[in-house]
Amino acid sequence: MASPKFTAPDGMPRKNEVDEFYDSVAEADLQPLWTQMGIMPETPPLAAIPYAWKWKTLKELAERSGELIPIDRGGDRRVLSLSNPGLAGQPFATQTLWGAVQYLGPGEVAPAHRHTAAALRFVIEGSGVWTLVNGDPVPMAPGDLVLTPCWSWHEHHNPGNTPMIWFDALDLPLVRSLDAIFFENGPDRMVNRAVDPASRSELTFGNGAGLVPFEESEKQAFSPLFAYRWKDTDRTLTTLMKLSNDGTAALKFVDPTRGIDVMPTMRCSMHRVSAGASTRKFRRNGSSIWVTYRGSAIVSIGEDRFHLDEGDMFAVPSWCSFSIEATQDADFFCTSDAPAMEALGLARTEYLD
Amino acid sequence: MASPKFTAPDGMPRKNEVDEFYDSVAEADLQPLWTQMGIMPETPPLAAIPYAWKWKTLKELAERSGELIPIDRGGDRRVLSLSNPGLAGQPFATQTLWGAVQYLGPGEVAPAHRHTAAALRFVIEGSGVWTLVNGDPVPMAPGDLVLTPCWSWHEHHNPGNTPMIWFDALDLPLVRSLDAIFFENGPDRMVNRAVDPASRSELTFGNGAGLVPFEESEKQAFSPLFAYRWKDTDRTLTTLMKLSNDGTAALKFVDPTRGIDVMPTMRCSMHRVSAGASTRKFRRNGSSIWVTYRGSAIVSIGEDRFHLDEGDMFAVPSWCSFSIEATQDADFFCTSDAPAMEALGLARTEYLD
Amino acid sequence: MASPKFTAPDGMPRKNEVDEFYDSVAEADLQPLWTQMGIMPETPPLAAIPYAWKWKTLKELAERSGELIPIDRGGDRRVLSLSNPGLAGQPFATQTLWGAVQYLGPGEVAPAHRHTAAALRFVIEGSGVWTLVNGDPVPMAPGDLVLTPCWSWHEHHNPGNTPMIWFDALDLPLVRSLDAIFFENGPDRMVNRAVDPASRSELTFGNGAGLVPFEESEKQAFSPLFAYRWKDTDRTLTTLMKLSNDGTAALKFVDPTRGIDVMPTMRCSMHRVSAGASTRKFRRNGSSIWVTYRGSAIVSIGEDRFHLDEGDMFAVPSWCSFSIEATQDADFFCTSDAPAMEALGLARTEYLD
Amino acid sequence: MASPKFTAPDGMPRKNEVDEFYDSVAEADLQPLWTQMGIMPETPPLAAIPYAWKWKTLKELAERSGELIPIDRGGDRRVLSLSNPGLAGQPFATQTLWGAVQYLGPGEVAPAHRHTAAALRFVIEGSGVWTLVNGDPVPMAPGDLVLTPCWSWHEHHNPGNTPMIWFDALDLPLVRSLDAIFFENGPDRMVNRAVDPASRSELTFGNGAGLVPFEESEKQAFSPLFAYRWKDTDRTLTTLMKLSNDGTAALKFVDPTRGIDVMPTMRCSMHRVSAGASTRKFRRNGSSIWVTYRGSAIVSIGEDRFHLDEGDMFAVPSWCSFSIEATQDADFFCTSDAPAMEALGLARTEYLD
Repeated sequence: MASPKFTAPDGMPRKNEVDEFYDSVAEADLQPLWTQMGIMPETPPLAAIPYAWKWKTLKELAERSGELIPIDRGGDRRVLSLSNPGLAGQPFATQTLWGAVQYLGPGEVAPAHRHTAAALRFVIEGSGVWTLVNGDPVPMAPGDLVLTPCWSWHEHHNPGNTPMIWFDALDLPLVRSLDAIFFENGPDRMVNRAVDPASRSELTFGNGAGLVPFEESEKQAFSPLFAYRWKDTDRTLTTLMKLSNDGTAALKFVDPTRGIDVMPTMRCSMHRVSAGASTRKFRRNGSSIWVTYRGSAIVSIGEDRFHLDEGDMFAVPSWCSFSIEATQDADFFCTSDAPAMEALGLARTEYLD
Repeated sequence: MASPKFTAPDGMPRKNEVDEFYDSVAEADLQPLWTQMGIMPETPPLAAIPYAWKWKTLKELAERSGELIPIDRGGDRRVLSLSNPGLAGQPFATQTLWGAVQYLGPGEVAPAHRHTAAALRFVIEGSGVWTLVNGDPVPMAPGDLVLTPCWSWHEHHNPGNTPMIWFDALDLPLVRSLDAIFFENGPDRMVNRAVDPASRSELTFGNGAGLVPFEESEKQAFSPLFAYRWKDTDRTLTTLMKLSNDGTAALKFVDPTRGIDVMPTMRCSMHRVSAGASTRKFRRNGSSIWVTYRGSAIVSIGEDRFHLDEGDMFAVPSWCSFSIEATQDADFFCTSDAPAMEALGLARTEYLD
Repeated sequence: MASPKFTAPDGMPRKNEVDEFYDSVAEADLQPLWTQMGIMPETPPLAAIPYAWKWKTLKELAERSGELIPIDRGGDRRVLSLSNPGLAGQPFATQTLWGAVQYLGPGEVAPAHRHTAAALRFVIEGSGVWTLVNGDPVPMAPGDLVLTPCWSWHEHHNPGNTPMIWFDALDLPLVRSLDAIFFENGPDRMVNRAVDPASRSELTFGNGAGLVPFEESEKQAFSPLFAYRWKDTDRTLTTLMKLSNDGTAALKFVDPTRGIDVMPTMRCSMHRVSAGASTRKFRRNGSSIWVTYRGSAIVSIGEDRFHLDEGDMFAVPSWCSFSIEATQDADFFCTSDAPAMEALGLARTEYLD
Repeated sequence: MASPKFTAPDGMPRKNEVDEFYDSVAEADLQPLWTQMGIMPETPPLAAIPYAWKWKTLKELAERSGELIPIDRGGDRRVLSLSNPGLAGQPFATQTLWGAVQYLGPGEVAPAHRHTAAALRFVIEGSGVWTLVNGDPVPMAPGDLVLTPCWSWHEHHNPGNTPMIWFDALDLPLVRSLDAIFFENGPDRMVNRAVDPASRSELTFGNGAGLVPFEESEKQAFSPLFAYRWKDTDRTLTTLMKLSNDGTAALKFVDPTRGIDVMPTMRCSMHRVSAGASTRKFRRNGSSIWVTYRGSAIVSIGEDRFHLDEGDMFAVPSWCSFSIEATQDADFFCTSDAPAMEALGLARTEYLD
């Protein structure tokens, strides 16, 4: 390992002693703190930058990957990850979150695996796909949020005639930072599996606000409800908007048996902004990825402004100011690392308006 | 205070000393433990007894009270309480729970008050009534559960043409035991109040499983959702029954923001038993009141068996074995003191089949 | 059951109808709410009254019971319970708490039993006694707090030459109200059991603030630490008094593995007031029993004032104002139902100074 | 950003299309998942390696830094960090933890600052130093654990005649991964500050197991007790060893008001192993740093074995098997990221013996 060099200001005889000292330090697999002043900056250093990806490009490339990358070349997880230009070539949207578009063509199957990195899907286009989560078939449709939590088996099936494209988010960078990655491939895929219109998870836990099975099942670290349907999400936003006095409404997706975030590392929420309305400007410690599901808006992230339309995705890095100004009625899906920051005592939020 | 007398077995001279001692003890406002052997029996002593009240009688008397007891004679809370014959004339259904039928005639109003005893309503018959809970108008219809938690203002309005009869339950005996009763009458009643089809509470917290407002409001000791609608309850039971393999299904009503019981002293649940099916036989520490909302059944409580039809109510005392055998498809509303028993470390359940 | 009678003001023909109605109501095991106006008073009705018991009397009668009541006449639990004159002859100090003095003579043994009512001992006089709690021998000495939580086996042994007198408190009235009493006699008593100077419970959990075994044992509803020693209590009060600016200091005894109250139904605390200093005047919902362990004071409870000396005990009923004015440096042990009131959402406190 | 290249196996015409596609993907700031197979390995990849640092070297270099690096060259935080050879020159002991030795000479002061990275000190040698934590002076002595939690002000003072060397640990790599670093320099240092033998924090919260102030202060994310003294730690280990049947004993340092880990990101524990005894062999997800405080041992980490003596430090990376075999009676201080792993639902432990 190279020794960090200390440059004495004057070339005095002590210089050699110091240099020798630094050599000894490096040789002992130590490093002086005082030569690494940048290691604790006053505020989170902007590595990940405010950034947006246009749906037009995402979709074109996803479709093109469908043509070019068959199953035997890796197409069983045909995923294009959002690669934040500030992160030195790493395939991550922010410091803690992976974001991507996944494309599954007609008749294709993404075979079973599981990993400790938690994942979620927010469907943008297509129909007829279902995901098998721990043996429970979960149909997918646009606007739906589908969870495949930490260490849960999952495989994707498209028995239909049209491709599906969805947004994938994982806490992969976070779990990698914690050196906590485990991964396992599943057994051979199933075929000809019949799918009910609702998963067992939904039949058990998705029946209505405050209505849960009388007998409690054992708690896991994540929600036992794996799918949140657009119909319900949309109705809820419509209802909350009635009570709103600033043209914005937002809901949080939670574990219906505990009211806490769906997964311990990722908060999921949906935000509606009426044409002409704006959200409050704030910044928080930790990052998020957003998907413009409907409408269009100007989004301000730090010093940058992005004009966004349906399907466009964007990354909000840690401690960047953030606000949305809708130019048409707009809906946004958001996922963030907020539950992790809160659990670790690190969350802070500052309103700037 | 009378002194408990100790009868010496032999009439020896010591007798007088002991009597004198007991006199001194009583005079000092003390009591010997050893003369009160019954104070800690081996199992909960059966004071409240297994008991059932027939809907036919309840309804007749409720209607009769509507005719005979006008507002100025107490009719502003026209309530007939279930008086368990084991409880020595106290107006309580069990040792910890008050149960009652309340009747509100067309055009009548039960004016505002609040109390630390928590209350709930489960509607049996009628339409058009609404309850104002802390200023939020909550419409009521058959099968609905409506909460008026500890210290929340509530008043009932019947602007329609038909009477309504509902089941009232309170934790009044429990709160009295704790010497924790507070009561306050409200200001003059409102008139001509317009009522939305759903309360603000429902618009905010009742939109769907796992969908809550993004911004958390301050937590209180009880659910912020005040109404659970029969339509949702019925659909949930139907769904859960699909997954059932014994012809029974049951749901618990919970605070949608935390997944815990709706109130810290009262658990609320709804139980469906298919014709010919039976529930498991068990007993638990603590009591409950049940309302037969639909169908008919034979209910075994301790050594007693009751044939029950729609509207019939029954009390299950502490540590009495209990099971339901449906003779027709049947639905039951139940409220119990289970959350209190659990919070105080006293809950125990024993299955007997 | 007798029918509550409605006295019509005018003797009109309707009188009979109403009387008949009330007869029918009573016959159906129902009771009208409107004839029971006192059932929900505006504030907790004063049943238990502010009251004090003098140590001189308590001790004399305890010793006298030692002479007069041998083992075979009930002396195996030679307990004189504080009987609040407001509670109609019930052997309870307050509505929720049992208090008593227990006397165990030299060579005597109180054999094993257990009950769901939780108990605690606060030792006033004597030495050499130990209590076996779930098989763990716990020595007792003046100023010590010893727990025998819900459903834990306990037996008391006095192998020494001097009697011991301690204060007993149980949540018995509360547990009776909940109909949750279970009781079981133990097997034959052990003899010649060697006792270590500290219990296994203390060796495991009593080593110091914030120092617990690395491997967590399964949590129960109560503290795994069964004894809190006077030496530690005294030192803590001395330390806290150094930081105090009003001449008072108070500590709470908690479960060292969770920081919560030692038992879910009873809070335990120790209060020191310097000569001439006073505690704040307040009232709370729920009751407490206090033991003057050292010093003397004037205690104001509601409208009453008591002059108290070492060993004197007193009861503070629900919602009575309360303050202590020390005439000599004074220490008080207190137990209350506060954790139950808090768990059930019923706690309220009002400061009055 | 360079495009990851796909090498077609056959040089067919499609090759150009695919290359063009990859170029487009890279240009759009996207990355294909299927070319990054290593991103989710089956178990945590061994980046940080099992490693040990010898006290002899640490001490020599620390002392040498005291001679060579005066205050104006960075000596106000004279810290040599343990640099794990597997971490590519980063100054971190493991993937989530910073470890270091800090040297403070006689008469020196390390001025006030605070940061969101949480820190702790475990003192190895010296006397007379105190740390000011949020205005509360905390004396330091060998074997003491002193906390400076997230965002708490801290400065170190050595008014004595001898240097002090202590072990520093921070969750810095973890907090950096989360992009949650904040840092602030304090105001000018205080001088001539008188120090009590115990901090206010200890006077308030450090009095004994299960004894806390009666009035609760507001909870923060970390322990209100900032110092855990060797005397107490040693006595606790001695006591726990009496109950041990395998020659090992271990304690966890916890928040005395809640029983949870002292800080949400770092578990602290102390482990005693008798000469000849061994700890169980296990591995866990997440990493730790250990300090040999007393005695000597052979430590097995993964495939490596280290002979360790007093003062030696070592790093246990994620998912490496680990066990200690004491060659003399030995005590170890340990800090790990376990609370973070547990809070995020990622903890897993496997016993291997």
